[in-house]
Amino acid sequence: MSLYVMKFGGTSVGTIERIRAVADRVIRTKNQGHDVVVVVSAMAGETDRLVALAHSISKIPDQREYDVLVSTGEQVSIALLAMELKQRGYGATSFLGHQVTILTDAAYSKARIKEIHAPRLLEALRRGEIGVLAGFQGIDDHGNITTLGRGGSDTTAVAVAAAIRADVCEIYTDVDGIYTTDPNVCPTARKLSRISYEEMLELASLGAKVLQPRSVEFAMKYNVPIHVRTSFSDVEGSWVTKEVPEMEAVLVSGIAYDRNEAKVSLIGVSDTPGIAAKIFSTLADANICVDMIIQNISAEGRTDLTFTVPKADLARAVNLIDGIKDIVGAREVKTSTDIAKISIVGVGMRSHSGVAARMFETLANAKINIEMISTSEIKVSCIINARYLELAVRELHESFGLDREQVAEENSFAGAG
Amino acid sequence: MSLYVMKFGGTSVGTIERIRAVADRVIRTKNQGHDVVVVVSAMAGETDRLVALAHSISKIPDQREYDVLVSTGEQVSIALLAMELKQRGYGATSFLGHQVTILTDAAYSKARIKEIHAPRLLEALRRGEIGVLAGFQGIDDHGNITTLGRGGSDTTAVAVAAAIRADVCEIYTDVDGIYTTDPNVCPTARKLSRISYEEMLELASLGAKVLQPRSVEFAMKYNVPIHVRTSFSDVEGSWVTKEVPEMEAVLVSGIAYDRNEAKVSLIGVSDTPGIAAKIFSTLADANICVDMIIQNISAEGRTDLTFTVPKADLARAVNLIDGIKDIVGAREVKTSTDIAKISIVGVGMRSHSGVAARMFETLANAKINIEMISTSEIKVSCIINARYLELAVRELHESFGLDREQVAEENSFAGAG
Repeated sequence: MSLYVMKFGGTSVGTIERIRAVADRVIRTKNQGHDVVVVVSAMAGETDRLVALAHSISKIPDQREYDVLVSTGEQVSIALLAMELKQRGYGATSFLGHQVTILTDAAYSKARIKEIHAPRLLEALRRGEIGVLAGFQGIDDHGNITTLGRGGSDTTAVAVAAAIRADVCEIYTDVDGIYTTDPNVCPTARKLSRISYEEMLELASLGAKVLQPRSVEFAMKYNVPIHVRTSFSDVEGSWVTKEVPEMEAVLVSGIAYDRNEAKVSLIGVSDTPGIAAKIFSTLADANICVDMIIQNISAEGRTDLTFTVPKADLARAVNLIDGIKDIVGAREVKTSTDIAKISIVGVGMRSHSGVAARMFETLANAKINIEMISTSEIKVSCIINARYLELAVRELHESFGLDREQVAEENSFAGAG
Repeated sequence: MSLYVMKFGGTSVGTIERIRAVADRVIRTKNQGHDVVVVVSAMAGETDRLVALAHSISKIPDQREYDVLVSTGEQVSIALLAMELKQRGYGATSFLGHQVTILTDAAYSKARIKEIHAPRLLEALRRGEIGVLAGFQGIDDHGNITTLGRGGSDTTAVAVAAAIRADVCEIYTDVDGIYTTDPNVCPTARKLSRISYEEMLELASLGAKVLQPRSVEFAMKYNVPIHVRTSFSDVEGSWVTKEVPEMEAVLVSGIAYDRNEAKVSLIGVSDTPGIAAKIFSTLADANICVDMIIQNISAEGRTDLTFTVPKADLARAVNLIDGIKDIVGAREVKTSTDIAKISIVGVGMRSHSGVAARMFETLANAKINIEMISTSEIKVSCIINARYLELAVRELHESFGLDREQVAEENSFAGAG
């Protein structure tokens, strides 16, 4: 007998019929003799409806009240699912954030879970009941309702799984697992049977949408195995677990991409100490996340500085830079929005050299120019012209053999590296 | 400076425009230098939408989860109203039942308020903020969400007003006050400027829909003045207050009616001890409320027993009676649904005789047969044929001079009584 946390997203509970199908699946797991906690999101479309109501009051709705409003979406879902389970003769109790309790910080709309105390949930499990939890929400130290940001129900599920020491956290979604890359872009994309937390965290942070990055952080910290699978069939999905020795044999596990960045170049900036600090602290103070940064070699006391920011923040960033243009001595500010970031990720990079070189070579062979590069221990990211993104994904996917099971291939790669 | 509780029903917050109008009115009171707590219902139609969702899961949805579901309606309203107030530059904080705190018993869907602890609300008022409270909901001792039944937001408003010692509880609604009777039935119906708690309680219990009876009980117990008024204009409404000597001068304050009762007659029941007890305990055990009861004079050890029950419970009641027909020795069970109850209410009855006689005489003059009668200290109710109901209302309204201000009339009535 194991303890399962099963999380279902908005599409999986989008209609009464689908809620019934979720109940089917939960009951099947329960009937296998397991204890079950279900975490659900708002019914598909409901959060959008609530957000539209908020925006019909105000362009920038008050953040505390915004969370009070949107958290009702999950409340509706848990009530309906618990009703359905009870009507089928299964003990079930719904739990809101304040009933679990899920304690967060007070950062409305993007709160972070601090602690989970779940005595009532554990008591319900001991009575043989199914716990039905509202995802996405918590309360702060003063009892104010908070929400965790889009995709936050994943984090609720993993954090609760960690708190109650569940054996597995199943994330049911509308895809059947984690792929080597986006199958819409690359038809030979292959479902991964297993991936490490570190790799998943990089992929999620770099644009893969299957899991909220924060949920992977939790899973990694508390070693909760995640099973990402489809709610529409029984097929086995992908497991996200701690790194095991076999994983190192694979150079690259996945390819992620992101079209949501824009590039800003400051031309002819004075190359004196404190200038970069001035620029980036100005952006940080405005809560604009700078991703990649490059600085050219200085000539005649001047240099060019290029960085990327989210497209949504570009206008604000340019405004801020214009305000300090004279202080930092920039001759010109150029921007570009037709860029894309492509990243390869794999824990195998730690122990194998030549992976980055192979990436650059593959792109060069396809005549794709690399505008910026950033690397970490287990990933390499390049900024390229957006029009070549799909081509780059397919070329890299083939070059690193992601269309084939890789353990057998690994030795030849390592040799070539 | 006074402390106001202002309650707005579902029609008053039914659209974004109306929520803005509610904010206008709240702000006007605040700007007059008063402290303000607002209590709101769900947006018109929202509760019905949620109830329909519940019924698409189950004909008899689980009661605990039903309350979790329907309580989201008020949560949406408070968030939107608080957003609107804040965007106009007024401090405002929304409060759910568990945040106030409003403690109730555990009778889902018809919970009764036990206690209110409002330290956070009072703190918000001290900071100069407007408190925006979800009506209709509370929590039980275990933190489960409960709701108070239809119209429960009135009770929330009055109970909160009592708990924080408000100077007045304003109930904003779509009518402009409390009328001597239903203006749709009787065109000469007149708005009352003032009525006692006792009279309002009888009128509300007897079918007048303007206030939930439980809210009037609270107001009476804690002596909270209620001002019932329209949310669509500034016109003064009707005050519900404790009895003052002038009220006694008025024989009849209002006429209520109820078409929702049905009549059951058991013919030829054995007239022996324990038979009535058997019949009415059977109905009570099934939670069927019996209203009026009459028993004919016994002949040859047999009697006829007639009583009324809510129309919605008639089928169940007849089933139950059929089951014990032989035990109680009834020859026949007859039912009738084309009946109506008409009631006159007034604290003046306590000190003036002849009021009931005048009622019977008025109905007799209009050739309306009285089928059953029940009286209390301050009311007389008659069951009549439903087709004569409107006529009866108009005749009694005129006979007791309700179409005119009554203090001047009183002496002649008293003389005639």
